Amino acid sequence: MVRRIEHIAIAVKDVEASARLFETLLGIDRGRIETLPDEGAKVAFFELEGSRIELVQGIGSNNPMSKFIERRGEGLHHICLEVDDLPGTLSVLHAAGIPLIDRVPKSGSSGTRVAFLHPKGCNGVLVELVEQPSGA
Amino acid sequence: MVRRIEHIAIAVKDVEASARLFETLLGIDRGRIETLPDEGAKVAFFELEGSRIELVQGIGSNNPMSKFIERRGEGLHHICLEVDDLPGTLSVLHAAGIPLIDRVPKSGSSGTRVAFLHPKGCNGVLVELVEQPSGA
Repeated sequence: MVRRIEHIAIAVKDVEASARLFETLLGIDRGRIETLPDEGAKVAFFELEGSRIELVQGIGSNNPMSKFIERRGEGLHHICLEVDDLPGTLSVLHAAGIPLIDRVPKSGSSGTRVAFLHPKGCNGVLVELVEQPSGA
Repeated sequence: MVRRIEHIAIAVKDVEASARLFETLLGIDRGRIETLPDEGAKVAFFELEGSRIELVQGIGSNNPMSKFIERRGEGLHHICLEVDDLPGTLSVLHAAGIPLIDRVPKSGSSGTRVAFLHPKGCNGVLVELVEQPSGA
């Protein structure tokens, strides 16, 4: 069962410039900008009550975020929903015929486990599921 | 200052079919499907911790949601962020040069006041701001 929106991710061309814009838009300071070499991305996080907004810039041209922007322009990229039991949720969704990008959980940041569902099964929305580490 | 993500809205072609899909995806029952004749839309709401997911179907072809789907297909349409003081927030954003669709708040559902910011000023994201009725 989905508990909450853990974050929404916005694809941007220049994460530093967008982080300054979102500081104004949201009226809050960004926590930090991180470079994630394994994912080919630079990310800024804004903490809200119960969820976060992430701005994501692809590094180079051969990464999903840059390709997304080429195709559709900057904008909403995906939503991430928190579940209690990710393997169990994936089994239920697979049995229900929902197309999964990740059949089994993979490692996310800070000890989380994550998996993506295919947008073609979610009304065009790219959905990430996340399970917090036990005890978190 | 933005407090939280109040909802995210997903443009869909058939809100009844999508509501059944999202019941499976989210593992929760939808609260209700409402027809909003003034907005030319049918909406399904899913309540999560601290926020909601809304599925929105345009009624007829001459409405923003149907035009959005024609142009981009089904998918993420806008995010709604809760602020404490909507008129004050709009003044601050206008003074900062952020392009607004609504310069002054308009009436939303359940006594709320809402206003939209222009996506061209928000990295391609259509942003709705909402202020809860006082005492809520």
